Amino acid sequence: MERPKVVLDTQGGDRGPAEVIGGGLLALEEFDIDLVLAGDRALIEREIQPTLKERVRHPRKVRRLHPEVLHAPEVVTMEDAPAEAVRRKRESSLVRGIEALKRGEADAFVSPANTGAVMAAALLRLGRIRGIDRPGIAAILPTVQGRNVLVIDVGANVDCSPENLKQFAVMGSVYAHEILGVEEPRVGLLNIGSERRKGNELALKTFFVLEDLPHFAGNVEAHQILQGEVDVVVCDGFVGNVLLKSYEGGASATVELLKKAIEKDWLARLGAFILIPALKNFKRSLSAARYGGAPLLGVRGVVIIAHGNSDAEAIKNAVRVAVESVRHDLVGKIERGIARYLPIAPSKAKEVTA
Amino acid sequence: MERPKVVLDTQGGDRGPAEVIGGGLLALEEFDIDLVLAGDRALIEREIQPTLKERVRHPRKVRRLHPEVLHAPEVVTMEDAPAEAVRRKRESSLVRGIEALKRGEADAFVSPANTGAVMAAALLRLGRIRGIDRPGIAAILPTVQGRNVLVIDVGANVDCSPENLKQFAVMGSVYAHEILGVEEPRVGLLNIGSERRKGNELALKTFFVLEDLPHFAGNVEAHQILQGEVDVVVCDGFVGNVLLKSYEGGASATVELLKKAIEKDWLARLGAFILIPALKNFKRSLSAARYGGAPLLGVRGVVIIAHGNSDAEAIKNAVRVAVESVRHDLVGKIERGIARYLPIAPSKAKEVTA
Repeated sequence: MERPKVVLDTQGGDRGPAEVIGGGLLALEEFDIDLVLAGDRALIEREIQPTLKERVRHPRKVRRLHPEVLHAPEVVTMEDAPAEAVRRKRESSLVRGIEALKRGEADAFVSPANTGAVMAAALLRLGRIRGIDRPGIAAILPTVQGRNVLVIDVGANVDCSPENLKQFAVMGSVYAHEILGVEEPRVGLLNIGSERRKGNELALKTFFVLEDLPHFAGNVEAHQILQGEVDVVVCDGFVGNVLLKSYEGGASATVELLKKAIEKDWLARLGAFILIPALKNFKRSLSAARYGGAPLLGVRGVVIIAHGNSDAEAIKNAVRVAVESVRHDLVGKIERGIARYLPIAPSKAKEVTA
Repeated sequence: MERPKVVLDTQGGDRGPAEVIGGGLLALEEFDIDLVLAGDRALIEREIQPTLKERVRHPRKVRRLHPEVLHAPEVVTMEDAPAEAVRRKRESSLVRGIEALKRGEADAFVSPANTGAVMAAALLRLGRIRGIDRPGIAAILPTVQGRNVLVIDVGANVDCSPENLKQFAVMGSVYAHEILGVEEPRVGLLNIGSERRKGNELALKTFFVLEDLPHFAGNVEAHQILQGEVDVVVCDGFVGNVLLKSYEGGASATVELLKKAIEKDWLARLGAFILIPALKNFKRSLSAARYGGAPLLGVRGVVIIAHGNSDAEAIKNAVRVAVESVRHDLVGKIERGIARYLPIAPSKAKEVTA
């Protein structure tokens, strides 16, 4: 297979383009990829010069380490209304980057910009995979068992139908199988009880709809997910987003309390040298679900959404997620998965463009 | 004020009546209350005999420490359909206990039974406070700042209207003011972003409706709540239940990872002697929100729902919550709060009886 070519949107992140570019260079160094930096050419050239000079001692590396630049002077901000921004800001790194993907000039697109705008650009320019009414954002969480669990949707669709959740289930299963390496992913429906008659209207209806999927493991409750009870969790984007932020909040609060306990005691302070890094790692991997690059599943191309506040390390990880998706032909596999498990044309749902 | 009289439903808990009775006796010993144990008389008498004998050396205490018994041979189980159980099982400790409250023979009712059945019994027998369409279950969570935060609803109403959430906001504020001692409780709407145009349909509409309440602090995200950003959080019961279980899950996973890190390192093991209890305390108080007794706000009486899996300590804490609510005339204060902030008759919502 050829080297995957990844377009990185350098604009729209909370920390500014330099941080994103730095992440891109880290990725270029670590992974066997071609990199395209989309954004203001002058700014990008200025940022990458020092890094390139530093590497002049290893001339064979330099060519590969020199990213391409896709000039795009406009910026989509967090304040922009998504669909409007995509229509109006045609010179933005977001629109130009997605269009490069559409034309087949690149294999994946990574962006830390306004999630709604990335979604809108992907929907309007790339379109959806046949059989998918709405794409969903997947988050990969760590579990205490060491394996990962995928949660979909974590914010793309705040109001969903049972059919949407069924499509998420199939896409999530394909991802878990292909990228996370789970032989037969167990799919759980996020709910507030284990019995099938539990839940709100959406959950009650979705249980019924999910039953004809293989490996449907029934309801799963929020306190069971990090225990690794299932491999894929489906829910609407509002609840999924609350779930993600709650885990992070619960883990952060625990670590903060730990620090307070440490301040009070010298013996504890000793142990802390060892414990704090372990906990921080876990907190970090929980946070990474939010910060490190979440695949947007269901559009016709590999699109990875990095959190707006991503640092260079988080951007690098988002690029890694992109590379893995390309190498496993994720889009093709999802197309085949949908054709297999959702053979009947699903009901048409409203488009999400706002 | 007279000594509050609390009816404790000894049946329907996962751990059996002996554990619940044990919790009642702990409460009787610690708080200045009269206790009524509702359940099977023979079983209750058998359970309390050893405790009473042990205390015979302090004869002055014995009279007060002897709980009354309210004989009720029927049991409402976790499998019972709530409304039907209330109608059919008239001899149950749940129905008899609630009826004692209704007749003014007791001041509060505490039960670890089937949450839906407790709700149904309270709704059908006690009725709602004027102006309240649906009662909500409140959970009291710890924050890293030390103060508490109240979340309502955490499971009573899985599908809500904006008006329901507004009523929760008023009831939660009254509770936070009266019981948690917050001068002017700040109320947050659980949402997935801070901007007012964020969220699902319910959140968007509710923001608008909450704006005419004093101390409305806008949207609050799940990772901010344990940081103590607000005093009261309103949400529908499905999302609230997910939130609660996620915090617990996040904290539990962190503690488990800590234990694993400790096993690998002797220095860490030293520190752990100090750290683990601190963390367990926090985890416990997070769990207590679920296990220790959650007030059902909006019905015409003090009703406290203990988790089905409560141990004796958790039952004691649930009785404590009951006693505080009685001492502060919580029901009267909520009635006045509703009359003040929701003067217009709210829209009628569907009854929750299922």
